[in-house]
Amino acid sequence: MSITAPAGFRAAGVTAGLKASGNPDLALVVNDGPEHVAAGVFTTNRVVAAPVVWSRTVVGDGVVHAVVLNSGGANACTGPEGFADTHRTAEHVGAALGVSSGDVVVCSTGLIGERLDLPALLGGVDAAAAVLSADGGADAARAIMTTDTVAKEAQESRATADATTWTVGGMAKGAGMLAPGLATMLCVLTTDAVVDAGTADAALRAATGVTFDRVDSDGCMSTNDTVVLLASGASGSRVGLAELTEALTAVCGSLARQLVADAEGASHDIAVTVRGATTEDAAVAVARAVTRSNLFKAAVFGNDPNWGRVLSAVGTVPVDVAPFDADAVDVAINGVTVSRAGGVGEDRSLVDLAAAREVRVDVDLHAGRATATVWTNDLTHDYVHENSAYST
Amino acid sequence: MSITAPAGFRAAGVTAGLKASGNPDLALVVNDGPEHVAAGVFTTNRVVAAPVVWSRTVVGDGVVHAVVLNSGGANACTGPEGFADTHRTAEHVGAALGVSSGDVVVCSTGLIGERLDLPALLGGVDAAAAVLSADGGADAARAIMTTDTVAKEAQESRATADATTWTVGGMAKGAGMLAPGLATMLCVLTTDAVVDAGTADAALRAATGVTFDRVDSDGCMSTNDTVVLLASGASGSRVGLAELTEALTAVCGSLARQLVADAEGASHDIAVTVRGATTEDAAVAVARAVTRSNLFKAAVFGNDPNWGRVLSAVGTVPVDVAPFDADAVDVAINGVTVSRAGGVGEDRSLVDLAAAREVRVDVDLHAGRATATVWTNDLTHDYVHENSAYST
Repeated sequence: MSITAPAGFRAAGVTAGLKASGNPDLALVVNDGPEHVAAGVFTTNRVVAAPVVWSRTVVGDGVVHAVVLNSGGANACTGPEGFADTHRTAEHVGAALGVSSGDVVVCSTGLIGERLDLPALLGGVDAAAAVLSADGGADAARAIMTTDTVAKEAQESRATADATTWTVGGMAKGAGMLAPGLATMLCVLTTDAVVDAGTADAALRAATGVTFDRVDSDGCMSTNDTVVLLASGASGSRVGLAELTEALTAVCGSLARQLVADAEGASHDIAVTVRGATTEDAAVAVARAVTRSNLFKAAVFGNDPNWGRVLSAVGTVPVDVAPFDADAVDVAINGVTVSRAGGVGEDRSLVDLAAAREVRVDVDLHAGRATATVWTNDLTHDYVHENSAYST
Repeated sequence: MSITAPAGFRAAGVTAGLKASGNPDLALVVNDGPEHVAAGVFTTNRVVAAPVVWSRTVVGDGVVHAVVLNSGGANACTGPEGFADTHRTAEHVGAALGVSSGDVVVCSTGLIGERLDLPALLGGVDAAAAVLSADGGADAARAIMTTDTVAKEAQESRATADATTWTVGGMAKGAGMLAPGLATMLCVLTTDAVVDAGTADAALRAATGVTFDRVDSDGCMSTNDTVVLLASGASGSRVGLAELTEALTAVCGSLARQLVADAEGASHDIAVTVRGATTEDAAVAVARAVTRSNLFKAAVFGNDPNWGRVLSAVGTVPVDVAPFDADAVDVAINGVTVSRAGGVGEDRSLVDLAAAREVRVDVDLHAGRATATVWTNDLTHDYVHENSAYST
């Protein structure tokens, strides 16, 4: 269950001293090859942290040797000095590992608007480089946690036709999502499959598009979100786009669900599934409107199956984005069709939201055949508390 | 300070018995003329309550004789039966007042998805008709309250060139806004100016566009939002578009601020002003992105001037909506420029958010000359509590 499960990778997680808590705060992941194929997806925010500016360029040529990640500071909105800090970090990693700094991805997470303690960070790089190990994945996963209460890891193995196996491993942090993102989401994926850079990029975009991109804990997009995929080729198994996409989607899906399950202050995970849409994009747009309704999310916190708030959120989606007849829409909560054809349906008291953490909201637009699910969380006292006290 | 301040209007507010609390829940407003000019603006939600479907048609010909408003039930998502209830309500009012039901606007607010107690409501109409009075405005304003803690009224008088005066009065309810709307926003505006229907409509749209439309307490849009303007002509003062727009904007601006000040569970009112935008629409889009950031709003609740959350919200606006250079943006909170050119600015400890309820956030995009302000509230424990317990 780790990024070091695939062959060809070493990792480490250490305490560099960036966090006041003294918890581990620096992770290093190294691809020992024989191949060093990579792909990345990043936040779509126009305000991006220095490490995102750097790392977008690094992955541009499809070659990455190492990823260094720190918690304890986002290095966002820190100006040219912040970018210089990222550059020096990459150079330090490159020197420690004997690789080019231009092949080192840098990820940071934590408070915006504060410079990193660079001497501490570079000391942490040295410490991590000294303990890199083929079973260091779990340590790395722990070192990237911020408000996470548990480390998030996932792993999938597949057999090829000639009976060799290949593996995808992953770790993620963040009580949120890629785009948009609550707290910063960082994710490193590793595989020992043999793939070319174009396939890696296409598979990664396809996998994140239906997993991390469909987790929307609080509608807020981070400046630092990064998902990077490293492929070592060490298994010798050559893998095609469909197979890689399938395995990456499984790993990313597991990590995305773990993010939702650990979202800041949440007491419910909510799966909003929209059916009967004209297109998948329309289904996503309607689902996202529901997942962004503070009123509905507060109702779920109160174990109140308030379908009126679902319908009123559905109705905010412009008709050119999602054509449907508002008088035809059905809403089910945990399998009870509480609203039928835009009006009252089954007895809402049949819905028991207190029974489980997971809540299923099913909206049928009766306008087409496309479907999509977006995950979110309820809006709770603890969410407000954690996010009002975060930086103090 | 009342809708009965302009000449030609009577109003009443009574207890029909729709609310379990026994508080007043039915208001009636009558335009005694000599003119019966009207205009209306309504929610842009595609899921609309029966009274909105009815009232949009009623105001379509620019003639309205009376408005009946009930709290204690939204009559939304109630199907054809709900529409029949609205129709019967209008017919009952028409019969009681001796006017056509087609000239009676109906407004409802309260829970979605439940039929109204029509016998109680119609009894309330009779009771209200019996006590209509030229000083009944305050009673009407009280009868439309739901989670409001205070009634909202406003009034402006203007002198014309020939020294006659004319007045605009207004009442509103809702801990939210027109579009989008938190709880339903209902507003009745009255004037004794002499205006034609086209002028009334244009002035109302202009006034609400820069007032109610720029209040965004929690990003949620109601199914019932209605603003209706009635003009009696009783002052004899003929008023042009510019003058009417100015006075309506003043009244709507006052009511909008009162809504923000009474928003459910809020402890701060936040004015987000965006300057240096290429267009007013771009300024509104950027301001609205900030007012919809739960992370920023939770930070304000914690008296934390977290400018990173402002910038990260600003950065979510697509470049085709608002062109600007993210590295040029300044952010000031309560006059302290905490972020300059996308980086760290003045010391954030200079900002004292605990000192006052009102918080000013100024974003300068340095991309043009357009400006707009959008008002919102902080995200608080009490917001979560009130909205998780609303229907239970």
